Amino acid sequence: MRNIRIAVSYDGTTYHGFQTQPIGNTVQDVLEHAIRMLTGEQTSVTASGRTDAGVHARRQVINFETSSPIPVNRWALALNSWLPGDIVVLQADEVAPSFHASYNARRKTYRYGIDTSKFGDVFERNYRLHYPMPLRLQEMKAALAHVVGKHDFTSFASRRSTKTSHVRTILDARMEESEGKLDIFLTGDGFLYNMVRIIVGTLFWVGEGKLSADDFKRILEARNRTAAGPTAVAHGLMLWDVEYDD
Amino acid sequence: MRNIRIAVSYDGTTYHGFQTQPIGNTVQDVLEHAIRMLTGEQTSVTASGRTDAGVHARRQVINFETSSPIPVNRWALALNSWLPGDIVVLQADEVAPSFHASYNARRKTYRYGIDTSKFGDVFERNYRLHYPMPLRLQEMKAALAHVVGKHDFTSFASRRSTKTSHVRTILDARMEESEGKLDIFLTGDGFLYNMVRIIVGTLFWVGEGKLSADDFKRILEARNRTAAGPTAVAHGLMLWDVEYDD
Repeated sequence: MRNIRIAVSYDGTTYHGFQTQPIGNTVQDVLEHAIRMLTGEQTSVTASGRTDAGVHARRQVINFETSSPIPVNRWALALNSWLPGDIVVLQADEVAPSFHASYNARRKTYRYGIDTSKFGDVFERNYRLHYPMPLRLQEMKAALAHVVGKHDFTSFASRRSTKTSHVRTILDARMEESEGKLDIFLTGDGFLYNMVRIIVGTLFWVGEGKLSADDFKRILEARNRTAAGPTAVAHGLMLWDVEYDD
Repeated sequence: MRNIRIAVSYDGTTYHGFQTQPIGNTVQDVLEHAIRMLTGEQTSVTASGRTDAGVHARRQVINFETSSPIPVNRWALALNSWLPGDIVVLQADEVAPSFHASYNARRKTYRYGIDTSKFGDVFERNYRLHYPMPLRLQEMKAALAHVVGKHDFTSFASRRSTKTSHVRTILDARMEESEGKLDIFLTGDGFLYNMVRIIVGTLFWVGEGKLSADDFKRILEARNRTAAGPTAVAHGLMLWDVEYDD
């Protein structure tokens, strides 16, 4: 069997998340259907991580096994011909049998997109949270800086997290402002369930003046989900990139 | 009666164009419905110009008469509360009774968007023509420069045009390249039916090497639609801005 790795971009608006569910209509279902149409094989793909309903991916990475002899440089075009317009395979390569898209992921980057314009950019409505009120950007930046480093992120993890350790390392956290837009990028060695969305929801409390950057730091240190802010809406979140050593 | 002018942005993907049609589901229908829900009045709006099915507007301008006493600074927010997410009112003001969004328009700018990346940007799929093949950009720029000035644009007008004169003045024409994107902007005192899309379709023939920039100039001078290229697909076109003297 060959082990094929593909990078894929998707607009999560109409899907019930990445991972196969009884309700159907997931990105995984559609990808596995395309692979079956192309190869005749029923396969189960492995992603770098799941994304929730409404969450997008600029660059998600998955792998799957196949006995198909299709040359690696044909996979992207061939799969795209079986995929709908909102899922696009960007590249494909053949990897070692031991490669696993989740276990081998070294760094992941998420972007949370905010539309700060008065009435919202109609062309970004599915990709950004619309928030037209003033925000204390400097205080938000100061708060965001506190997540960088190795921390127990229990305060910023969904109570539904099933991980035994909530310790993760954030390698980079930054905010970028442009006309009517605010982007929050987080890069880490791994993320807990809803972690980016809870960090952003708590940053909004800082932006609104309900918390200071120091309060934000104390919430992180409290290791208690009830201390943190709400989970920001899904459609502002985008899996930006996944990096591997090879 | 008051004469209200509003600037509106819309994603044309799911509409049968701007102008009311027997088939229904037009931007005009939805705007007039919102005005009726807000004011109780059945009105007919006037746009700077119609846009075809699938064509978008970053900034379209319309006007309509009303006897509603709603203050002008409340119109945008109030109408947006009755509009779907793909149509957004950006601003409103009260204008002279004689103001007419079409007759008084001094300059209009259109953008034609092209996605030149290999497999297409999934988040731009409804807003750009995906064209991943190489294009002779310098020759296209040389051809595009020929449309600037006052010309009879019969070669670049749909045969369904009902205008008595096909003379229009293009004030600015430019191409902007960025990573995976190509934007063509045209500013003029007016545009004939399908004019931007036929200019772009003919520019593609130049880009593909079927025509030279000099051939493009001869086609313009021929005043003959059969000499020009195809009408580029609607979804790449966006009404970018409409300017008035006041």
